[in-house]
Amino acid sequence: MVNNNNKNMRFHTRKWVKPEDLNPNGSLFGGQLLAWIDEEAALYTIIQFENSKIVTKFISEINFMSSAVQGDIVELGIEVIKFGKSSLTLKCEARNKMTRETILTVDNIVMVNLGADGKPAPHGKTKIEFVKDRLIV
Amino acid sequence: MVNNNNKNMRFHTRKWVKPEDLNPNGSLFGGQLLAWIDEEAALYTIIQFENSKIVTKFISEINFMSSAVQGDIVELGIEVIKFGKSSLTLKCEARNKMTRETILTVDNIVMVNLGADGKPAPHGKTKIEFVKDRLIV
Amino acid sequence: MVNNNNKNMRFHTRKWVKPEDLNPNGSLFGGQLLAWIDEEAALYTIIQFENSKIVTKFISEINFMSSAVQGDIVELGIEVIKFGKSSLTLKCEARNKMTRETILTVDNIVMVNLGADGKPAPHGKTKIEFVKDRLIV
Amino acid sequence: MVNNNNKNMRFHTRKWVKPEDLNPNGSLFGGQLLAWIDEEAALYTIIQFENSKIVTKFISEINFMSSAVQGDIVELGIEVIKFGKSSLTLKCEARNKMTRETILTVDNIVMVNLGADGKPAPHGKTKIEFVKDRLIV
Amino acid sequence: MVNNNNKNMRFHTRKWVKPEDLNPNGSLFGGQLLAWIDEEAALYTIIQFENSKIVTKFISEINFMSSAVQGDIVELGIEVIKFGKSSLTLKCEARNKMTRETILTVDNIVMVNLGADGKPAPHGKTKIEFVKDRLIV
Amino acid sequence: MVNNNNKNMRFHTRKWVKPEDLNPNGSLFGGQLLAWIDEEAALYTIIQFENSKIVTKFISEINFMSSAVQGDIVELGIEVIKFGKSSLTLKCEARNKMTRETILTVDNIVMVNLGADGKPAPHGKTKIEFVKDRLIV
Repeated sequence: MVNNNNKNMRFHTRKWVKPEDLNPNGSLFGGQLLAWIDEEAALYTIIQFENSKIVTKFISEINFMSSAVQGDIVELGIEVIKFGKSSLTLKCEARNKMTRETILTVDNIVMVNLGADGKPAPHGKTKIEFVKDRLIV
Repeated sequence: MVNNNNKNMRFHTRKWVKPEDLNPNGSLFGGQLLAWIDEEAALYTIIQFENSKIVTKFISEINFMSSAVQGDIVELGIEVIKFGKSSLTLKCEARNKMTRETILTVDNIVMVNLGADGKPAPHGKTKIEFVKDRLIV
Repeated sequence: MVNNNNKNMRFHTRKWVKPEDLNPNGSLFGGQLLAWIDEEAALYTIIQFENSKIVTKFISEINFMSSAVQGDIVELGIEVIKFGKSSLTLKCEARNKMTRETILTVDNIVMVNLGADGKPAPHGKTKIEFVKDRLIV
Repeated sequence: MVNNNNKNMRFHTRKWVKPEDLNPNGSLFGGQLLAWIDEEAALYTIIQFENSKIVTKFISEINFMSSAVQGDIVELGIEVIKFGKSSLTLKCEARNKMTRETILTVDNIVMVNLGADGKPAPHGKTKIEFVKDRLIV
Repeated sequence: MVNNNNKNMRFHTRKWVKPEDLNPNGSLFGGQLLAWIDEEAALYTIIQFENSKIVTKFISEINFMSSAVQGDIVELGIEVIKFGKSSLTLKCEARNKMTRETILTVDNIVMVNLGADGKPAPHGKTKIEFVKDRLIV
Repeated sequence: MVNNNNKNMRFHTRKWVKPEDLNPNGSLFGGQLLAWIDEEAALYTIIQFENSKIVTKFISEINFMSSAVQGDIVELGIEVIKFGKSSLTLKCEARNKMTRETILTVDNIVMVNLGADGKPAPHGKTKIEFVKDRLIV
């Protein structure tokens, strides 16, 4: 299953840029943004796999298109690109909530499902599931 | 405008409970959860008011119904209760994304819009606006 | 035992408001203040119960009366309101040490004592004990 | 004025040892404890000088006598040793609130009052003042 | 000037993996590692450009080869790949100091020099300079 | 073995002074600097002892000679002063990377090697070893 269309990207988590998120030049510290993205990819994957033993395996190139300043609100979007046997490939975008200006996109973040032994293990999923559907059915 | 119906609550921000979010007993530190809720109310308000000069004025009673442990995913929901002249009253819920167990609800968080002088000022809004609509129209 | 008189409130912990404690508007982030209060209530309770297995169960409404800015010193006061069988009800106040201006008060924070099974358990205390007295007697 | 007697030490701030305060060996990270002590000395000094422009100039030798583990409560005590013309010399002790075991003592922390130009300036104080007295008189 | 040889990589900054650096699975949080790398690239660049107004513009793909656990020591290495007119391209490696196992490598991190107007500006450097040489000559 | 000559001091870890590292007066928070130094001493010791069970036992007097401001780069140097039976005495210096101005020096930091029982234990080392040599030979 491949979705490469922005309509499939869903924005959930929002961050309020605070003094502790800034670099010494007064703009959003890139490392902080990368940490936010890695966490968002991780928790999205955990929800899909219904397994919290997961790791980030690969992040494709990152192009910083714009930044953010103190008081801005950053919104993180995730879109599923591909379900592998033991992996999940995600696309991620960070944007400014008010202006919708894109801060950066990452085309491929590969997350891997781990078994009890800490090694890659099949996750048994082939498509996006919503928690609502799991609970109802 | 009063919405008191859970269908109107929208869940956006998600948090992955990490070691630094725990109290010494190994469960989610209540103070950390309160900080997450205050931030979520603040950024929701900023988006509605299109003004980042806002303050939290009042938080109604908080009943801790359940907790979370390391690795859990906490999801924060916000619902508008009332638009005042210079304020916005929100309802907030924190729940576990996988189990949908409610961790806590806060019935009223009153956020106030500030003018350039740092004093309460009319925000001129009477209903929820979505960023998409603002940009299109 | 009920003490509702401000003379019974004892101020211990002090915080120096640093850049990382601010919201993007440059005043003390409310969520940080709530985290400080929750920690203060927790450690006061642990000392009284002589048991570190405790949880915050309830926080009554919070009225933000004033704020603080970078460099201010915030002082946290705790007063015992009521000893329940497995609980302790505290009143909390945060104030500016230099001006004595009250930042906020919380009339009731209910802390609960937990047994080895993680469930509420009697704490066996009926009044405030000072560590000095315990050690001497 | 010289006070070298432990009866003059007053304990205020308390810290709850949380996961983020630990070193990788599971005991209180010494660097975190030093940061707590420096902050306590700073805010005590600010209250005495009624001036927030102060710096730590000197810390005498530090002997780590015991440590603390997750869930412990650390209490910080300060005692005035000497008022200089533009300085204040403090003694500091960190101890475990429940056991009263001393974690460390620092005999001399020299804090310096700064003028508007950022250079040492007379503070005009010769003895400890309590905020209560200042406000009443 | 192009150096693509590992002999040119110099390892400076070391990090001790603490509880606050872990993800909920108990291994080093990838986002924390990315933040460390971004900071290391930034400060290396500032030293070379003798200008602290710099931004991260691009990060090439990241392959997570191994991880680290609590108590491990992570060492960060930087090597100059190319001096552009207003940019500097770096290669970065994170490895375990004791085992020398590589955690990840990033082949290209492009850092950009900014002028007073916040826009890319020539940095005037064509090769690595050591602070020692600048000061002596 | 005693080395008291500055030529033997090796500078590794570098820190970029960010908003979260400042005190409310806008200069580097002394407590943060002490935490950085303690961590640097700890990880240097772990590498030498090839044992991560170590503690800081003693820190000699600290004279704050200069400070740093936001955007500065602080470099930490360590030099071995003496190998004891179960201890290691280090000298530490923090300086500004660009100006080489010394921020502070600590003449003696005594680190102790612990055995499995958590008590001081011989570390079996008598001189500095470099990881490279250990691995090659």
